[in-house]
Amino acid sequence: MELPGYRGRSQQLLRSSNVAVGDLVQVRVRNNAYKGTLLPRYEYADDHHIAIKLANGYNIGISTNNIVLVKRIRSGKAPRLVQTPLSSIDNKLPRIAVISTGGTIASRIDYRTGGVVPAVSAADLHSLMPELNNEVRVESEEILNISSENVRPKHWTLMAQTVEKQVATGMNGVVITHGTDTMGYSAAALSFALLGVPIPVIFVGSQRSSDRPSSDANLNLVGAARVASQASFSGVYVAMHIGLGDDLLAVHLGTRTRKNHTSRRDAFQSVNSEIAATVKDKLIEENKLRLPRRGSASDFQARSKFDDRVALVKYYPALDPDLFEFLIQRRIKGIIIEGTGLGHISADLHKAIKTAIDSGIVVGMTSQCLWGRVRMTVYDTGRDLLKIGVIPLEDMLAETALVKMMWVLGNYKRPEEIVSTLVDNLAGEITLRSPLRVGSK
Amino acid sequence: MELPGYRGRSQQLLRSSNVAVGDLVQVRVRNNAYKGTLLPRYEYADDHHIAIKLANGYNIGISTNNIVLVKRIRSGKAPRLVQTPLSSIDNKLPRIAVISTGGTIASRIDYRTGGVVPAVSAADLHSLMPELNNEVRVESEEILNISSENVRPKHWTLMAQTVEKQVATGMNGVVITHGTDTMGYSAAALSFALLGVPIPVIFVGSQRSSDRPSSDANLNLVGAARVASQASFSGVYVAMHIGLGDDLLAVHLGTRTRKNHTSRRDAFQSVNSEIAATVKDKLIEENKLRLPRRGSASDFQARSKFDDRVALVKYYPALDPDLFEFLIQRRIKGIIIEGTGLGHISADLHKAIKTAIDSGIVVGMTSQCLWGRVRMTVYDTGRDLLKIGVIPLEDMLAETALVKMMWVLGNYKRPEEIVSTLVDNLAGEITLRSPLRVGSK
Repeated sequence: MELPGYRGRSQQLLRSSNVAVGDLVQVRVRNNAYKGTLLPRYEYADDHHIAIKLANGYNIGISTNNIVLVKRIRSGKAPRLVQTPLSSIDNKLPRIAVISTGGTIASRIDYRTGGVVPAVSAADLHSLMPELNNEVRVESEEILNISSENVRPKHWTLMAQTVEKQVATGMNGVVITHGTDTMGYSAAALSFALLGVPIPVIFVGSQRSSDRPSSDANLNLVGAARVASQASFSGVYVAMHIGLGDDLLAVHLGTRTRKNHTSRRDAFQSVNSEIAATVKDKLIEENKLRLPRRGSASDFQARSKFDDRVALVKYYPALDPDLFEFLIQRRIKGIIIEGTGLGHISADLHKAIKTAIDSGIVVGMTSQCLWGRVRMTVYDTGRDLLKIGVIPLEDMLAETALVKMMWVLGNYKRPEEIVSTLVDNLAGEITLRSPLRVGSK
Repeated sequence: MELPGYRGRSQQLLRSSNVAVGDLVQVRVRNNAYKGTLLPRYEYADDHHIAIKLANGYNIGISTNNIVLVKRIRSGKAPRLVQTPLSSIDNKLPRIAVISTGGTIASRIDYRTGGVVPAVSAADLHSLMPELNNEVRVESEEILNISSENVRPKHWTLMAQTVEKQVATGMNGVVITHGTDTMGYSAAALSFALLGVPIPVIFVGSQRSSDRPSSDANLNLVGAARVASQASFSGVYVAMHIGLGDDLLAVHLGTRTRKNHTSRRDAFQSVNSEIAATVKDKLIEENKLRLPRRGSASDFQARSKFDDRVALVKYYPALDPDLFEFLIQRRIKGIIIEGTGLGHISADLHKAIKTAIDSGIVVGMTSQCLWGRVRMTVYDTGRDLLKIGVIPLEDMLAETALVKMMWVLGNYKRPEEIVSTLVDNLAGEITLRSPLRVGSK
């Protein structure tokens, strides 16, 4: 009996029920019953769920606590992935590069072992997305295989250099598969490093791996590939599931998106910006944002340096002023503060911040509110901070501001250039302040 | 010509138009015209808006850039606040205490000087909320007058002690007026310090001061007073405007709310929780949450100690591991980490965190996603962090977790008690994990 991925309670139940992965089974729970093909399990460590694929193609997980009976309807073979031979893909189709960095998104299930194997070859990727076989020709490059919480600025440099190289080969678009945890940071980083990139560069991840009930892996990957090959805009974006259904994708500006839920498939949101586009099946609907258009690859160069001597300080009541002394000693060159409200922090920190600025550190202000704009001319606290040289960063996300600070410090040397570049809108990260409207909310 | 609060361009325009505050004026803009009473201005430093009150009672601000002409229709007197004599308030009405700590919410306009004057006396407050004169009898106490970004743990102690004292006098409810910037932190702090409080304690602030177009000050204050006097539940809440109209208020659990916009009136949201109630005019609709009910004041005691040797560390790529060494040296006793996704941080920080834990620091994990729950058993990174003793804090907001850590360390000494209290749901701050549902999203 093959039961890959099952252990403990679920394995025991399936063994005693005499069923194997691939069998068509009936699973009775208290007030209901499900019929489907028993799937292998992996990744999730829990030992008390079984997974079946229903006739409608939907995968569900059922807790062993609720299961009254598992019955085999007929024996079956564990499903195996059918490889798409690359020779069957028309070589006149638009070409996209899929650059793998890790995460579960571009993984395929090894049905023999029940394990997850990175889908790194172009043939693997075509096999995962057979619906694209007549639309794009995938080329692939694995540059990293790490969890995204381990991504560091040096990895952004590697990603940017890889995209630059792929652009030079005449790709129509690039997809970067990435874990979701820090995908927002990486997308912001590449938005700056790849300023002027002539094609779309689409980050994509998945919140649920492909063996899980209602996985978003395939939807996201197919949608990202379509945007990369077909969108009229260029630049760096994140493509992820949105909405309550199983078929809608949002394309977020790389500088404006954030993972706003730990586990939901629609975790990514655009903050302080509209989304750039939606994707539903083959239909890409682009919003009327002013986005850069596709251009010629001939003279594109990435600016992929990041200086990681930068710190993000989120304000909270009782924040220790000596933290800034520590940052000075550590030779930090830039600090992004996540202040309260319109860009405030307690008066007892102002002196420490002035010392940091006087020692040459660039200090920018964002808001821990996430939504809205810092506006430091309204209250005394804000005006005092402006006076000592804190730079208001408008409606930029704190995470994007942090990454931009690393990029600016990596690419500019003169203080006035550093400041003017920080507050300049380079990649959609800042919206110019709208004048107060009559009767505005 | 009285033009209190006006300066620069707006003052010049009004002077040359020969109008004064209190006059009925017509203001022509490019494609429109407005008729209303010229209001004084204050607080906002800008010099290029004029404010008028329309016949429907709505205040609007108009940019001088758009103004073609200002014309006096008839002269008027600057409005003056009519004081409600306290002797006119029925002393059998429910009693509420309004405790002022600062912020613009409980301010009245001094129409003579154009300045904002704190509304601290009960007569002032009744004058601001004449609609309540037949509903509640207000008593007032000013304990602070500070911007909320300057609120520190010692101020939470003062607030909690003041509420305890007011409870002992038999109040039906308490309203605490507070600046919005750190109101979420303070509400969380008092949720713990006032565990078991037998009456509703309602924090209230305003995003727009009462001279501003579409101010929420009066709506919020009246609504908060009604909830304090009438709600069937007890405990600590935040009452603030929600929705797109001018008449709806949400009552958020003190441990679950956060300022999620820098300037909108509906900035406060409940995160990972439903709201406790809505207020529309006189109607309070309570949700079916399990909330503590009103009880007897006889044996209530606040536990208002906070230990501020606690730090909040928001993870970001390139976070310096030596930060934890700095925190150890500063004799920090508790650290709340805002990790990525389900509760992760880069592997190169694990050793530094282990050292902190081994030195006796309590380390709890929350997520910078805001929404959702940490779940550290899913990926290796999470399991490694659990192994070294990091405590997963479920779906608690990072800010609430920080404040709870300060309170737990201030009130418990034994390590096992500290940990078990941290992960226990005391004031609605944690929802127990729901079992995986079949076909769940």
